[in-house]
Amino acid sequence: MKILGIDPGYAIVGYGVVEYRANRFTTLDYGAILTPAHTPFGGRLCTIYEEMCRILDLHRPDCMSVEKLYFTNNKTTGIDVAQARGVVLLAAAQRGVPVAEYTPMQVKQAVVGYGKAVKSQVMEMTRVLLNLKAVPKPDDTADALAVAICHAHSSGSLLQAAIARQGRR
Amino acid sequence: MKILGIDPGYAIVGYGVVEYRANRFTTLDYGAILTPAHTPFGGRLCTIYEEMCRILDLHRPDCMSVEKLYFTNNKTTGIDVAQARGVVLLAAAQRGVPVAEYTPMQVKQAVVGYGKAVKSQVMEMTRVLLNLKAVPKPDDTADALAVAICHAHSSGSLLQAAIARQGRR
Repeated sequence: MKILGIDPGYAIVGYGVVEYRANRFTTLDYGAILTPAHTPFGGRLCTIYEEMCRILDLHRPDCMSVEKLYFTNNKTTGIDVAQARGVVLLAAAQRGVPVAEYTPMQVKQAVVGYGKAVKSQVMEMTRVLLNLKAVPKPDDTADALAVAICHAHSSGSLLQAAIARQGRR
Repeated sequence: MKILGIDPGYAIVGYGVVEYRANRFTTLDYGAILTPAHTPFGGRLCTIYEEMCRILDLHRPDCMSVEKLYFTNNKTTGIDVAQARGVVLLAAAQRGVPVAEYTPMQVKQAVVGYGKAVKSQVMEMTRVLLNLKAVPKPDDTADALAVAICHAHSSGSLLQAAIARQGRR
């Protein structure tokens, strides 16, 4: 299963593509879509859309995994992140790529095994699971890889649960 | 000046196209993009994007006028409205159509002349200014026409202000 993890934003969109097979990860690609500050917001959305289309067409993932959005602190920034996230979801939907959403706690639980893990623990476990020499930068890229891992583990759990259910019949 | 007014949403996107010339409005088109309930959110975004592209390519407006977004009551609904609004902004930006944003109070001020006008007053004035027999339905369509009028009046005021400034020199 090939998974595209996304950490959405309007200044930086982190992305990471991993292949998950037989409980092992292969890291295929990761990086960040950067949109220059002081450019019109619409132009930033265009860049994000074009880059998302490029990444989706290049890797043809089986699924896109994205963090759920919550508005807590800055509502104005939150609106712009949501607007950019809409463009990310559009690019996936146009290609028929299903989207899975996870809360930050689900990501921590899936990657570290503990829902209240701190950021550095999540990043280090991401590095170890993906067999990388260093934690990818910027943080948005590491977060994108973490949410991809989360989907692999969650789908795995669901699969194992299904096998277990069949075994009990 | 041809203005496309938009009332964004994920279930209903109201739109209205007006021509504003010599202080007079000509109503060219209005309606609503409807996305069926119980369909995946990504599919709704695809429909909104396709219809927005169609409307923009058909009318080639000089400007798109949209209400500013605020999150007050339902945050989850607000996130989805913002995500859909991002897709609307993308379609305009891809065509180089500039976007003007107005607060609800600015729309009321521009259409009725009173920033605390009630909804029915805004709708009736929209009907009168556009010389329509009835207030367009759904409300989202009427709201879209109102925000288009708002941009015409605001631009007009700016123009008049510029002329007044020149006259004083």
